[in-house]
Amino acid sequence: MKKNKDNGFEIIKNGGVCTPLGFTASACAADIKGKKKGNLDFTLLVSDIPCQTSAIFTTNRVLAAPVRYSKTLLKKKGEFRGVIVNSGCANACTGAEGFENSKKTAAMAEKKLQLPAGSLLAASTGVIGAQLPMDRISAAMPALCEKLEDDNGTLFAKAIMTTDTVAKETAVLVDTDNGSYVIGGVCKGAGMMDPAMATFLGFITTDVNICAEELRELLKETADETFNSVTVDGDMSTNDTLMAFANGMSGITLSDGKNREQFCKALKWVCRELALMLARDGEGATKLVTVEVTGAKSNADARLCASKIANSPLVKTMFAGCDPNWGRLMSSAGASGAEFDPDKVSIWFNDLLYVKNSLIIDSALEKKVYEIMKQPEYTIKLDLGAGKGRFVRYTCDMTTEYIKINADYRS
Amino acid sequence: MKKNKDNGFEIIKNGGVCTPLGFTASACAADIKGKKKGNLDFTLLVSDIPCQTSAIFTTNRVLAAPVRYSKTLLKKKGEFRGVIVNSGCANACTGAEGFENSKKTAAMAEKKLQLPAGSLLAASTGVIGAQLPMDRISAAMPALCEKLEDDNGTLFAKAIMTTDTVAKETAVLVDTDNGSYVIGGVCKGAGMMDPAMATFLGFITTDVNICAEELRELLKETADETFNSVTVDGDMSTNDTLMAFANGMSGITLSDGKNREQFCKALKWVCRELALMLARDGEGATKLVTVEVTGAKSNADARLCASKIANSPLVKTMFAGCDPNWGRLMSSAGASGAEFDPDKVSIWFNDLLYVKNSLIIDSALEKKVYEIMKQPEYTIKLDLGAGKGRFVRYTCDMTTEYIKINADYRS
Repeated sequence: MKKNKDNGFEIIKNGGVCTPLGFTASACAADIKGKKKGNLDFTLLVSDIPCQTSAIFTTNRVLAAPVRYSKTLLKKKGEFRGVIVNSGCANACTGAEGFENSKKTAAMAEKKLQLPAGSLLAASTGVIGAQLPMDRISAAMPALCEKLEDDNGTLFAKAIMTTDTVAKETAVLVDTDNGSYVIGGVCKGAGMMDPAMATFLGFITTDVNICAEELRELLKETADETFNSVTVDGDMSTNDTLMAFANGMSGITLSDGKNREQFCKALKWVCRELALMLARDGEGATKLVTVEVTGAKSNADARLCASKIANSPLVKTMFAGCDPNWGRLMSSAGASGAEFDPDKVSIWFNDLLYVKNSLIIDSALEKKVYEIMKQPEYTIKLDLGAGKGRFVRYTCDMTTEYIKINADYRS
Repeated sequence: MKKNKDNGFEIIKNGGVCTPLGFTASACAADIKGKKKGNLDFTLLVSDIPCQTSAIFTTNRVLAAPVRYSKTLLKKKGEFRGVIVNSGCANACTGAEGFENSKKTAAMAEKKLQLPAGSLLAASTGVIGAQLPMDRISAAMPALCEKLEDDNGTLFAKAIMTTDTVAKETAVLVDTDNGSYVIGGVCKGAGMMDPAMATFLGFITTDVNICAEELRELLKETADETFNSVTVDGDMSTNDTLMAFANGMSGITLSDGKNREQFCKALKWVCRELALMLARDGEGATKLVTVEVTGAKSNADARLCASKIANSPLVKTMFAGCDPNWGRLMSSAGASGAEFDPDKVSIWFNDLLYVKNSLIIDSALEKKVYEIMKQPEYTIKLDLGAGKGRFVRYTCDMTTEYIKINADYRS
């Protein structure tokens, strides 16, 4: 365990969503992924006792069946115990039959586990437009429900993967004056950029005592600064889901301002860590690039500008080629809709100031910029010289591998 | 020559911008493209007499020097004789020096050709952030100015190319009751999609008699339905330019409604033909896909939806892989911001209805859809079932070749 001194909490590397007290998981290969037999693709996360539960879903007009099902349940404000997830089939664009299949899947698990009806939420990720293979779901259910263990967090992380190349999970232990509690997190997603719209799924668990309303408020605030910096709200897939479960089993309550602040920091740390894992694991990506826009007229303008740059195929292919073609940054900024004087832009690669007043300072610096761009992780900062607005986005390079993955996704 | 019966005009295959009376062009290799020596990269288009002239420029906040220079000239409403263009260097993000270089380049040509100062507009395309090589521009100028001929339209088309693989030009002969006139056109651009922002340059010439104001009005109207269907206004490069020159040398005036209507049709035909050439020649593209959205709540909604689909990397890679992954079309539509009932969408591949009420009609049709997607050109139609709005966009597939071209653009 590594103590993070700045934030006053300890990072727990393995365990993920099962790290807080009272959370168990199980996973199996139900052959939903089709050709990739033997891969984990069906998984359960269950709390020993009911949880305060909140969730954020995609803003896409086309909602996948599990999203519609989970939203319906959450509106009823029932008692929630966890979530059942499959990868390999998104169960999106599947009509009334798809909705029934999500409901049936959750109901089967609830029955086996003797949980109240409607206590399990649902999530799916994979190919859109295909129905869930209910025969294989049924066949896998008994084994899935029998294997719930509190050290299966990593199996859960693996079972929700699609084009991800690594499992993404983390957890932190937070000390308070009255004892400690844990926040665990897991996510999947590799087609991370907003034009790509590949599914993001994220799950947060904690044994702290917090009410659903407050959890939702903090979750939304945190997501805006973390996950939404790699995926834009307005452009999510049909299935994007972020759920948080709090079972209170640590006995610690967010009673005062200090505790609340500490929780916010720890939650933000968990979410940012997961968000960076997403960006690093972008489909075909070899580089994690942080795009920081400062000096914008407003934070909204900074966001427009950073988003345009971070999502431009021309910029992302330039990252892939390690080409200091800074004109593409200028052109993206100019096309973003952000207001600024086109003659007042400064650009840094890490700490190296390369462009000032929209002109290269010294063409001899190009070699140094090239060296920076060859690194697997670096930061590009644009100052627009128009105000105090600031926004940071995380992006990756776009490689030929990205095309190969997405041209052949279903084959 | 082929008579286009529907529109009552003849298509002239070769000649491009030099086809109307009184237009001459020349081109040479000035070594502006650097490594690609011997390639044509410097070119002139000149009318024997002053022209009524109009232009549309990029809406990017960052404007290239030749765009700023040409805008300044056009504001003065001087007498225009033509345009001087280079490829290989965009002369964008080059500050005051860049502006002076555009001015000097035009002035040198004006002097050699004994034209009034300020009678030549300027355009550039190529790498952003580098100054024009004025020594090589000067050295090439005498030869360039001596070679003006009325059969050099195709050389002009070739000299403005960057990553284009084919020269793009066309012309039509329009018969009227009082005689005939000609409209010629040329363009370049291969990184055609709006996230890509590669430069579009287009030039229209005609020997009809039309005033600059009317020419501008018709040009704008036509561009919206043609060039802007492959490149979105809000997202143009720093250099995008569409210019139209009318010298009236045919003696035909757009005196009545019938003549005007005929001119509009012919101009639109020329621009659409050039726009389709752009889409077919998209960087790394192997397919031209027409995306038609109907049944939207408004034309604006249809445009949002068609644009989102036509620009989605996930959709464009699916075109490359000939993968009937229609869920990506649904997901893009849902993320576009257009209002519609997600359960009421129909999707056609050419004339084949594949999806009705947002569900596949018959999975056995997938093979037929695959056969259609293997063709080099096809149409995808989405009906949103929400109204009468309609919009058409032209797009291409995104291949590994696109990445290679753009990752290594400058090397």
